[in-house]
This record gives sequence, C-alpha cells and structure tokens, in this order.
Amino acid sequence: MATQPQPQQPASTYSNYQHFLITTPAPFVAHVEINRPAKLNAFHEAMWLELRSVFRQLSSDPDVRAVVLSGAGDRAFTAGLDVMAAAGGDGENGDGARKAARLRRHIAEFQECISAVERCEKPVICVMHGISIGLAIDISCCADVRVCAKDTRFAVKEVDIGLAADIGTLARLPKAVGSQSWVKDVCLTARDFGAAEALAVGFVSQVHESKGAALAAAVETARFIASKSPVAVQGTKELLNHSRDHTVEDNLRYTGVWNAAALQTDDLTKALTSGLQKRKPTFSKL
Amino acid sequence: MATQPQPQQPASTYSNYQHFLITTPAPFVAHVEINRPAKLNAFHEAMWLELRSVFRQLSSDPDVRAVVLSGAGDRAFTAGLDVMAAAGGDGENGDGARKAARLRRHIAEFQECISAVERCEKPVICVMHGISIGLAIDISCCADVRVCAKDTRFAVKEVDIGLAADIGTLARLPKAVGSQSWVKDVCLTARDFGAAEALAVGFVSQVHESKGAALAAAVETARFIASKSPVAVQGTKELLNHSRDHTVEDNLRYTGVWNAAALQTDDLTKALTSGLQKRKPTFSKL
Amino acid sequence: MATQPQPQQPASTYSNYQHFLITTPAPFVAHVEINRPAKLNAFHEAMWLELRSVFRQLSSDPDVRAVVLSGAGDRAFTAGLDVMAAAGGDGENGDGARKAARLRRHIAEFQECISAVERCEKPVICVMHGISIGLAIDISCCADVRVCAKDTRFAVKEVDIGLAADIGTLARLPKAVGSQSWVKDVCLTARDFGAAEALAVGFVSQVHESKGAALAAAVETARFIASKSPVAVQGTKELLNHSRDHTVEDNLRYTGVWNAAALQTDDLTKALTSGLQKRKPTFSKL
Amino acid sequence: MATQPQPQQPASTYSNYQHFLITTPAPFVAHVEINRPAKLNAFHEAMWLELRSVFRQLSSDPDVRAVVLSGAGDRAFTAGLDVMAAAGGDGENGDGARKAARLRRHIAEFQECISAVERCEKPVICVMHGISIGLAIDISCCADVRVCAKDTRFAVKEVDIGLAADIGTLARLPKAVGSQSWVKDVCLTARDFGAAEALAVGFVSQVHESKGAALAAAVETARFIASKSPVAVQGTKELLNHSRDHTVEDNLRYTGVWNAAALQTDDLTKALTSGLQKRKPTFSKL
Amino acid sequence: MATQPQPQQPASTYSNYQHFLITTPAPFVAHVEINRPAKLNAFHEAMWLELRSVFRQLSSDPDVRAVVLSGAGDRAFTAGLDVMAAAGGDGENGDGARKAARLRRHIAEFQECISAVERCEKPVICVMHGISIGLAIDISCCADVRVCAKDTRFAVKEVDIGLAADIGTLARLPKAVGSQSWVKDVCLTARDFGAAEALAVGFVSQVHESKGAALAAAVETARFIASKSPVAVQGTKELLNHSRDHTVEDNLRYTGVWNAAALQTDDLTKALTSGLQKRKPTFSKL
Amino acid sequence: MATQPQPQQPASTYSNYQHFLITTPAPFVAHVEINRPAKLNAFHEAMWLELRSVFRQLSSDPDVRAVVLSGAGDRAFTAGLDVMAAAGGDGENGDGARKAARLRRHIAEFQECISAVERCEKPVICVMHGISIGLAIDISCCADVRVCAKDTRFAVKEVDIGLAADIGTLARLPKAVGSQSWVKDVCLTARDFGAAEALAVGFVSQVHESKGAALAAAVETARFIASKSPVAVQGTKELLNHSRDHTVEDNLRYTGVWNAAALQTDDLTKALTSGLQKRKPTFSKL
Repeated sequence: MATQPQPQQPASTYSNYQHFLITTPAPFVAHVEINRPAKLNAFHEAMWLELRSVFRQLSSDPDVRAVVLSGAGDRAFTAGLDVMAAAGGDGENGDGARKAARLRRHIAEFQECISAVERCEKPVICVMHGISIGLAIDISCCADVRVCAKDTRFAVKEVDIGLAADIGTLARLPKAVGSQSWVKDVCLTARDFGAAEALAVGFVSQVHESKGAALAAAVETARFIASKSPVAVQGTKELLNHSRDHTVEDNLRYTGVWNAAALQTDDLTKALTSGLQKRKPTFSKL
Repeated sequence: MATQPQPQQPASTYSNYQHFLITTPAPFVAHVEINRPAKLNAFHEAMWLELRSVFRQLSSDPDVRAVVLSGAGDRAFTAGLDVMAAAGGDGENGDGARKAARLRRHIAEFQECISAVERCEKPVICVMHGISIGLAIDISCCADVRVCAKDTRFAVKEVDIGLAADIGTLARLPKAVGSQSWVKDVCLTARDFGAAEALAVGFVSQVHESKGAALAAAVETARFIASKSPVAVQGTKELLNHSRDHTVEDNLRYTGVWNAAALQTDDLTKALTSGLQKRKPTFSKL
Repeated sequence: MATQPQPQQPASTYSNYQHFLITTPAPFVAHVEINRPAKLNAFHEAMWLELRSVFRQLSSDPDVRAVVLSGAGDRAFTAGLDVMAAAGGDGENGDGARKAARLRRHIAEFQECISAVERCEKPVICVMHGISIGLAIDISCCADVRVCAKDTRFAVKEVDIGLAADIGTLARLPKAVGSQSWVKDVCLTARDFGAAEALAVGFVSQVHESKGAALAAAVETARFIASKSPVAVQGTKELLNHSRDHTVEDNLRYTGVWNAAALQTDDLTKALTSGLQKRKPTFSKL
Repeated sequence: MATQPQPQQPASTYSNYQHFLITTPAPFVAHVEINRPAKLNAFHEAMWLELRSVFRQLSSDPDVRAVVLSGAGDRAFTAGLDVMAAAGGDGENGDGARKAARLRRHIAEFQECISAVERCEKPVICVMHGISIGLAIDISCCADVRVCAKDTRFAVKEVDIGLAADIGTLARLPKAVGSQSWVKDVCLTARDFGAAEALAVGFVSQVHESKGAALAAAVETARFIASKSPVAVQGTKELLNHSRDHTVEDNLRYTGVWNAAALQTDDLTKALTSGLQKRKPTFSKL
Repeated sequence: MATQPQPQQPASTYSNYQHFLITTPAPFVAHVEINRPAKLNAFHEAMWLELRSVFRQLSSDPDVRAVVLSGAGDRAFTAGLDVMAAAGGDGENGDGARKAARLRRHIAEFQECISAVERCEKPVICVMHGISIGLAIDISCCADVRVCAKDTRFAVKEVDIGLAADIGTLARLPKAVGSQSWVKDVCLTARDFGAAEALAVGFVSQVHESKGAALAAAVETARFIASKSPVAVQGTKELLNHSRDHTVEDNLRYTGVWNAAALQTDDLTKALTSGLQKRKPTFSKL
Repeated sequence: MATQPQPQQPASTYSNYQHFLITTPAPFVAHVEINRPAKLNAFHEAMWLELRSVFRQLSSDPDVRAVVLSGAGDRAFTAGLDVMAAAGGDGENGDGARKAARLRRHIAEFQECISAVERCEKPVICVMHGISIGLAIDISCCADVRVCAKDTRFAVKEVDIGLAADIGTLARLPKAVGSQSWVKDVCLTARDFGAAEALAVGFVSQVHESKGAALAAAVETARFIASKSPVAVQGTKELLNHSRDHTVEDNLRYTGVWNAAALQTDDLTKALTSGLQKRKPTFSKL
C-alpha cells in the first residue's frame, strides 16, 4: 500500500467553479454536482460553458479514474434549460439567413459543451433523481452508465416548448436503448416517464430507493472501476464509444491499432500477478 | 378557439382511394385503414402503389399532424403479400441476367412504396391485431410507434415461402429493437410470436385488450401529438429518422442546421405563453 | 422422402480436428463442441486457428444448413483465453513501434479467426453454460442466436487482466443488445452476470434449466431452420448481417440486388406447393 | 443481322414532351435536346419536372441503350434557372420555420428531378456549348461523360445571385474532378471558365471545334456503347455510381452480388463468339 | 456606397498575436502572415496554439469575408515543424501504453489546431513560396484555394525524419488532388516537387512569377470573393467541405436543409437587383 | 555499415512459386514478375491464388521494404483473364439462385486474391508495358505507384466480353484518378488508351521510353523508399489506404492512435542524427 499514489483531493484544484461542486468521495473518484438547487439545477449559458471546463479538466487529470455526476438538492437532477434566462433573445437584427447563422453557431457551441461529458476519457456514472427533464436527458445520454432514484420523473420535454431537442437527445437516445417505438413515443409526446419504465427499456441500468442510495451505489461502482487498470478502463470506454458510430469491421481495425500500444503496459503483469496472489494491484498514473 | 383553424374532414379529399379508408377521428388526425378485410387485408400490387399515394398526400397535407394506421376487420392487420396474386409470374422470357433486372426493378419500386410510410413527415402510429405477418412487419417497421391488441399473431414469414424478406423487415427490424439474438431467431425460423413477446423485446410499446382498445389509445396519442407545435413534432420525427442512419456527430451537425431555421417560429412563444397561462396553444398550419 | 438428399455424417469429413468435436445430431445440422474440458475449454492459439478452419469448412459444406456451437464438459462453455499459454511473450526485441507492429498483426489474425463464426454462411446457434467469460463473449457475439443454461456465469473479463477486450466484444456486444448503460456497466466493471440478467437485456433469447436442455432446444431449432429453404435462410442471415453495418437505404439496395438472383430458385415453388399440400418440402443442396 | 431487334423510333413514344425534343440518331441511341432556345434553354419548374419524366422513361425503355443530352440552338446548352420565372415567390405567409419547410420541400423535389439523369440506367453523354452556367453544371454533373464545344462558357454562377448552389453542383463537382483548389476557386468566385480549362481539370473529357462536331462525336460514342452488351454496360454504370459513394470493400461486396446474377447472361457467349468470329453480336433487349 | 459598412482595420483587434501578423489589404479581407522568418517560419507549439486562436477569431469576425494566408520573408512559407524545439521529449516516464496516451493527446490537439484553418467559416487562400515542406502541406491542405510562386519547393517530408505525417497531410492530400499514384509517390519518397508539378496534378490552381505576384493575385481573388454575398460564399464553403466527407445523397439532404434558412436572405434581392442595374451590391454583416 | 542487416536474397525463400519469379534487385527490394510470357501473362485460377500467397509472404517478410511488380516478356504486362481457361464453366447444375451462390463465392475469392497486392504492408510499384488490359487494370489499381513504358496499351476490356469488371477496377479506378468523365468513358466503351493519356489523367505517374527504362526507374524508386525508416514508410502506406475509405475526421483519429505507438521508435533519432551527420541511417527490421 505504501507505493499506492495518494489521490489528491480534487476539490482543491476544482474549487474555482461557480456552478459545480467537485469532491473526492473515494480514491481516484471525482463527484461532480450540478449546484444550483434553488433553481432546480436549471442551466443557463455560463453553466454549460463551465460544464465543459470541468469535464475537460477531469479528462486529463491523472488523479481521476472515474466520475460520478449528480444534481444537488432533493428536487431535481436538472429541470433542463432555464427558459427565463434563454428567453431574452439576441437583440440583434438581420434577415432569416443571418439569424440562422447566429442560431447555428449557438447550438453548435451548446452541443459541444454537453458532449464534453462523453469525450471525458474517464467513465462517467450519472445519478438522476426528481425532476430530470429536457437537458437532463441530453446530458445523461453522454454519460456511460445511468442509474436513478425511484422518484425520478423523466421527460424529453422539448416538443412542449415548441422545438425539437437539439443538444443531443435525438442523436444519442435512440442508440442508448433498444425499442425505437418507445423512443419515438416519449420524444413525440413529451410525456413523463418514471424509473421503472426507464429501467424496463434499458435507459437506466439500476433503480434505487432514494437519491442517497443511488448516489452511494454509483460511488461504489466508480470506486470499483477506479481500482482497476486505468489503461484497460479508459481503453474500454474509448473503444465502446468508437463502436457506436462505426461498423464492426472498422472498430476491429481501430481496436487492433489501439491495443498495439495499450498492451505495452506494466498493468498486464500487475493485474495478473495480483490476481494470482489475491491482493489489490497498484497501477501507475495515466 | 375562434382562431383555431378548423381541420377539414380529410375523408373528402381522400375519398377516391380504392383499398384504403381514410377518416378524421380527431382534429388534425388521419386514420388510414387497410380495407380488404375479406382477404385478410393481403396486398397486391395496386394496393402498395396506392399506399404510397396515400402517405405522400398525408405527408404534405397541412390539415394532418398525426396518422393512425390499422387494418379493417377483426381478423388481420394484414396477412402480407397476396401470394396468389403475385404467383402469376411475369410471363416474359430472357436469360438469368434479364430476369434479375426485372426483379430488381420490381423490388425497388415495392420497397419505395412501403417506405412512403417512413418518409411521411407526420408521425405514424401503427395499430396491429390478429394476423400480422410478412408484409405486416415490413410496413409496421416504417411506422414511428407500434401498438397492438393482445390477440396479435406476428411472424416474419418470408423464409417459409422460400425467400429472404426484401421489403424492409431485414433492414429495419434489427434497428427497431435491441436483442439481435431475438431478431435472428424470428427471422430465421419464421415462427409466430405474440403480443407479450413483442412488448418484452420492445417491438411494440403498448399492448391492449382488444383491437378496439388499441385503436382508441392510438387515436388518443395521435390527438395528443397533433395538439402540439407541428414545427417541433415534425422536426423531432425527421431528426430521429436521420439519427438511425448517421453517426452522433453527423446528426448533431444536421440538427444544428435544421433548428437554425426551425427556431425562427412563432410556436416557441405560443407554446411558452400558453404553458404559463395553462391554456391550449393554437399553432398555424405547416 | 425418397428424393431427400441424405445428409452425410459430417463427423467423417470433420474428424481430423484436434480441439473441436463435430457431429450430426439432425439432418443438415452440425454440432461443434469446443473440446478441451479439462482446461475449462480455454483457448490457445492453435485452437482459434482451428476454429477458423472448422467454420470455413462448415460455411461451404452443402450438407450443413445450421450449426450448433457449445462447449464440452459440465463446467464451462469456455473460460476464455488460456492466460498461461499466452503469457510466454514473443521473446523478440525491438522498440515500441516494432512491438506494436507485431501485436497489431497478432490481434488482427486472432480477430479474423473468431470472426469466421460470423462469416459462416449458415446460421450458428451458440449454447452457453457454466463459465462463459472473456473470449466466450467475443465468440458468442459472432453467433446468430444465443441460448444458455440457468447456471451460466458470464463476464466481460478483460479489464480484470489489464486490457480492453480486443477480439470483438466491444465491437459487437453494443450492437447485440439495446441498453448501452448495461453494456458500459459490464464492460467497465468486468463483473459477473447471470442467465436471468442476460435474458432481460436480450443478450440471450432463451434460458434453459440445464446445459442438456439448452443443447436439446438449440439442436431442435437448428433442425427446424435446416428443414427450410437454404436459399431463404442463408439469404436472411447475410442480409441481417449487412443491415447491422449499413444504413437502411444501403441495405434495401443491397437486398434488391441479392434477391434479384435469389428469387430465381425452385425453392419458391417447392415451399409454396408443399405449404398448400401440408407436406415437407425437399430442397436441393446449396 | 436479320434477328437484330429494330430499334423503334423513340420519337414516337416521346412526342408528347413540351420542352424536350427526343430523336433516335442511331440504333438504340436516344438524343434529348433541351428545347427552349429562344430563352437560352433556361429552366422553369415545368421543365425540370418534365426532365424527370423523360429520363425515367428512357431508364426503362428497352429500345434505348445510350443517351445523348444537349441544348437546342447555337447560343447555350442552358443559361440555368430562369430567374424571372422563379422570382415570383410563393405568395404564402408564415414564420421563418414555415417558410423553411416550404423551401426545403421545393429544393428536395428540384434536386430529385435533376438527379433523374444520374439514376437513368443507361449511360448519358452530355454535350455542352455556348452558355453553360448555373443549372448547366448541376445537370451535366449527373451525366456519365461530358464533352463540349470549344466555345463553351462555363460558370458555377449561383454565388453571383446570392445563394450557394443547391441542386447538385456542390455535391457532385468535387467528386467529378481531382483538383479541389480549382473546385473551390470556381465555386467561390463564380468566375467563367472555358473549354480548355474544363479539359485540363478533367471536367470534360473531350473538346471539339464546334457544337456540331461535339454532338457528332457524342452520338458516335453513344452508338458504339449501344452496340455492346447492355447487361455489361448498364452494370458498369451502376457499379461505378455505387463506387463513388461507398468504400472499396463495400463496392466489391456489392459487385459480387450484382454479377452473381449478371453473369447468368447469354451475352457472355455472344460477345466471346462474335469476338472470335470478328462479327458484330446481337444482344437481346434489357 | 454611403451605406457600405466600412470594414474596420482588423489589425487593431488582431494586434496581440506574437507569431502572426494580421492586416487588412482590402475591404473585408484579412491577410495572415506566419511571422517567424528568421527561422524559416518553422512552427513550435505556441505557434500552432496561436494559429487556432487566429482562425477562430477570423471565423466569427463579421468584418472578415475572405482570408489570405502566407509566410513572411523571402525564403519560406514554412519549413514545417521546428524539430529542435520538438526534440526535447516529454521528460516523463511510464510504460509504452502511458507514453502512447500522452502522444495521442498531443497529436490530437496539434491536429485540432491546424484544422482550425479548415473550420474557419470564411474562404482561405493559401499563398506558398520558397521552402514549403512538412507542416506546410498539412496547413495548406486545410485552405480552400492554393496558389504558389514559381520558386516553391514542396515536400511531404515526414518519412525522412522517421515518421508518417500525422497532422493532416495523409488525410487531406489524397482528397485534394486526383492522381493517387502521384500522392503515394511523394508521400512515400519524401522527394521535393516544384510549382509546375504541383499545378499539373492540381495541388495548386495558380503559379505566379514571384511571391509578390502570387500574393497580389490572392489578395485580388479574396477581394473579389469578399465583394459577393457572404451568405452565398460561406454557404458554398460549408457545403463543399461537407461534400468531401459525405455521399452525394447525404450532401443533397444537408444542402436542402441549409438553404431552407439561407434563402431567407435579403442578399438574393440585392444581388439580383444590382446585377440588373450593373452596380455593386452592399451586403449586411454576417 | 557493419551493423546493417544484410538483406537475404528473397529468391531462395520465394523459389517454389510456379507462375511468379521473385528476385532481389536491390537491398530490401523484391521484384515480382508475372511469369507466363508465352500466354501474354494471362491469368488462370492457380495464378491468382498464387499471387495472394506471394504478396502475403512479402507483407510479413522483414527483409522486404518495397516491391516492384511487372510482367515477364516483351509483349504484355498481362492480357488479363485467360478466357479459354475460364470458359469451361462449373459443370454443376442448379437453379438461378444456386448458380448465383457459386458465382458470388468465386468472385469474392478472386477479388480477395487480387486485393492481396493492396493489403501488402510494403509499398508496391507496378510497372506496365505492352498489353495491359482487363485484369491488368484491376491489379495495377491495387499497387501504390504506377509507372509504364511508352508502348503500353491499356483497356478496361470487360464490357467487350459481356460483363461489368468485378475484380476491383470499378471500385478503385474512380478513386485513383480525378476525371470521372474519363473513367466512365474508358469503362463504358472498353476502348484502348495509351501511356500519354494515362499520364495526363494521373493513372500512371511516370512514362518511360521502354519497359527496361520503366523497370529500372521503379527499382531505383523502390531502393530509395527501402532506404528509409520502415516504420515511417509502412505507416504512410497504411494511413493513405485508410484515408481513401474514411472521412478526414476518422482518418485523423486513426492516425493519432497509430502514431501513438509508431513514434515510440528509435528510427526517429536515427533519421534525425544521420540527417545532421549526412550519412545513411540503418534501421532495424520490421
């Protein structure tokens, strides 16, 4: 145990964020909380810009090997976009083409900020509870594993405010679950659905009695993942994400090239030896 | 309510179809019935050519915002291809290459007719009951949402008549549900499966006690969808269909360009305002 | 029945394999057993090279129309890679780039051997029981239908030995089931999962009380498939495999060209006539 | 020669077109002329709808094996879109999203009409002369072979009227020639370029002294192509068009399936035998 | 002319860059010079990070409608990577997998910086002269139009320093010119090639007598492009870039959606009217 | 120089081939001659099976770093398929679907044999002379660099014998040159074209006075390539081949992963140091 690198408290290097609280509940595990509970964790622009910064930092932080993402407070993971903050409009003039150019750039940057959760090289476990609508779905679709509390109220809410979801839900949700009849149903009707339904269709893979229980389970899973070879874990995330958007053949070719470098690691021997010796291996930073 | 555009009875403009009965069970909702119950709604060529015409008309009809598709009679949604009608052969001669050219053109047009259900810009809810085999699967895979009665008897029947399904089932079914082991099983064995199994694998998203109950629920869902912004609803269908056949990144880019125009709609304000005022919004035609 | 071509005992033409036992439990059905039970059917290099030879031969053998794949013995379908056999290293020197080139070629050939199960033109039903970890998942993902015994213990085990799975699991598993939250969970944690969970997520499509019962059911399904038109069955497998890696439109185009030749078969008439006459058709070899 | 099917004068079956003149300059060769010379063959909507009809008919006409496309009169292949006819606007109201929906449908149908030239199963040789700007480039990019007269004045003109070309030039021109620096130059500046430059970059493959000479050469090439096996020729066009939009591996797979039917033709023996006997083969209709 | 928005001198808002000199040689035209002539404009890391910042700023600057990119001094556009600066190594330890992770992240960021030239929404004309090797090819492949002086000495130099080019040359050069035999030749041999050869294969589209003449011509082309509708010009660039990486069908669909918004511009009327009135139109900012 | 690994004479390990003569004209260079000059080097099945074996062996032979491919004798590179040998037919019966299955498997294996030239990890320079028709084009399109003698007579000949080329020409030729009008012309007409035309369109990158001169130049280029880092050269070939069939973004990602291992080579230092010291580096085997 003496040679185990002591995970630094990430909180110190993550203390200057305004809208997110980052702590270290277990070695090599970061816990990111959306921290605007008084407003049901609803997002305004400064928040999604900051979300990108947080996950970029986590992605390259050698002291972090797994991430848990949740919302602060009892009532909501997030109620989605803060419509009041967004309603101001851009105040600029111009014809339809010029408005479109501004809107397109705006959407592209918004998408890119949320996608930072998916691009983070470390696995992200998303814990949902209470109100989890609109942007909540976009964000959680970027996570690797989704769990929730029994009280969660989900909705792909965008149709109800007059638009097609454009920050990732329509791109990722159909590829996150199997039943497309169900996907079309919830996206076209904007109806609520609960934890049991989310589990049945495979959107979440665990339901827990309470937010607390869900969070504890997520941290435990993150701790467990963080105890394994980071070369193996981060490679697995990368190759699974590549798989979604490529053919089997393309993915096999990419995998071969990836592992041609990744297998040149001491983690293989460490994992094997400690397995035989029934002790916990210690892996170098990555 | 005074400004609400009164949906015209579509039946009048749809009254010249031979094999399909089109009615208006709710505002902005069209109900299309396959109307050959004496023959279990089995299809011959004139029928699939007409199916294409029906859905092309619905696609651009501003008085239609959601579509329900079902089969007339108690016994079958459709028993598929009318084999007797198809068995006549083409009577033309030629070597294997020339026969192949004729077959290829025939299949391509047949596929294109059935795909009209998918290309229809308005959401389509398919209600199945009784015998729903062969072409029933090809057609229902083109719908957005699938529901069925408890008595439905499904089968990907083509292998039993000596051919691989070629009108869309093998292209779309694997992407409509999650379990590929199940897809291969039903496609390779041509065995029957029932409503419960269809629900468990996610092929349908609702099972009802009877055809009547299934139809009522579908009309209610269609009515609900039709009450929402058509800009939002039709954009959602388009972006979800695009998503199936593109990478996440490609879909995000396409979505950004799509919404750059779609967000320039009055529906946003209408939806928001009426939401706050707890009254039903009225949207212009699309 | 007199004209029915008598399936030859494949065992005779398959008797020179060392690590696999091939028998003929039913007409036109081959049963392939991984045959190293004393070592939990763990694979070394000679075995996967031989696996490729077995499935190449089955692919073009006109006396085989369906294949059942299982593991000999009571304890394991396969415990995966024989780590002890693999641990020898290559003993060759060279810089990191040269090691990478050797590793890449090695992985590519290993992948190509296992993919032979998928490329086999005849449907493959995989029967799992007992220990089914690591390479067991890579192999079974190449099969068309997966069934298992109640006692099966599955795991995507690679992370536990310090690597990302590279022989196909990360390429095919996400496309074989619906819930990506579940896929990420089992791949990132390397945790065990059982038959009930495998069924619930759709990884297997049947669970049986025992290995014996699972095997019997698989042979029965294989016998059933083998009784149908081989033109129809093998076309269905090809078109479904093509579908996974292509857009709907691409698959429809490919299907049209495929069936332009495949419909020029006597099997259509045979299947139709025998269906009407309620007798079993006899199809020519393919 | 007695058994040679006499090509019917297509003109008779093509005589009811308003804007195109169709004649038969050689056996199995159709010559399509854009026939509005007084207006520099500029297109209005009725014309592109008719263009689609013409090429659909040619595509399935067994008496046509090659097509020549040119513009009537001395001054222009076509001056492109008839801006005056298009400038009327749609007179309909609606917000930006609703205008966009109308524009999108309009563009999609316009594209689909012009693409009929590419989808025509028979090779199309396009002869350009004089003014060949705007839509002239969109149309000619759909042809298989492009030749021109020395006096041709080309331009990708759309930028000069305030829009990005949307009927196919930006999709196809970059794939029709090699130098992307040149493509960007002519598309971004809308500048004129002449026959010599078009030949140097490979946009056309022949330049002739006059329109008459270019047309004569095109008819001669079409006659030559039409004298060959239509199975071979039409397969070659299909496989080359498929190649442009697919990987080499995908195209090889598609080609194998295509030729599995196409090689079952009597044309192989006819071509071989007549080659040895140095006489002209006669091929059946396709 | 009075209403013409006066282009601000970009230099003022671009004056804080260290390694690039940005000026305004014509209305709405920015000229970016790589400004390290004493070192043959060779790049170190701070430079490519700054290159990204410069082109991001240009991309969204409404006062810029076209960009010219060149190298300061008489001797080189750029001699590529400053090998001395790069040779320091990372000084960090770790096994082969960990080194690979650091290298991969480093390459990805380097690629992303250079790609900023391609992502810039405004057309970029690259002017090469003198030594233009290694990174010079990567960078110029990101530009839209390439011109050069007669004295330019090009080389895809990477093989000579022991590596495969990884910053974009191997991705983009094969798609920028036609002859793949030539591409393989210059990439595998690392040999020099001159202006005439570059023109013959279509890598550049103009050769001028001197750097000065090339620069003058590029500025003139940029000025010409900048005088046209920015909606049309920027749409054309976007659609051509999309075309390279998508099928014709995908690009047509994307184009339709793009222009559904872009055609809602006043530039159409302005361009048309001023064309008829033979005066220069004035377009609003974009 | 003492540590320079002496290239073994490949001829000894390549002496058991029947139809190909393999020699070592320069260090690390293999010269493969198609060796059936009495029959104009026409191919029968045993030859293409052997071609695959030859190039598989070369691909993994550490003593080979570049390959030259040519045809023995004065008259032909190859006259293509030996039609007499192929005309025997398969003598087997069966309906159209069963014939198609045999043809499809046959074509797939034939394609796979010829593709071995492309899959060879070492660069291949193809030298053509005299008759170079039919299969000559399929084969040469798999090479990296193509050169020819002045007397070469090329033709995509397949249409003249009643079929569409199916061994790779239609898949690869459109991607090997720029002008698609030219590609369609030569593929649809089957006309001859000469060395000058081949050079002008970029199909070959050099034309020499005679076969001898072309061969000498090819060997010299191969020798030059073989003197460079094999890590750099083979990586360059792999990444360029990947580029043809992937988007720029996909290729950049793949390149980053590839070079993450490839940069961990001693060749970087060797190449750099010897460059500074103006002496020839010696690279380890790969």
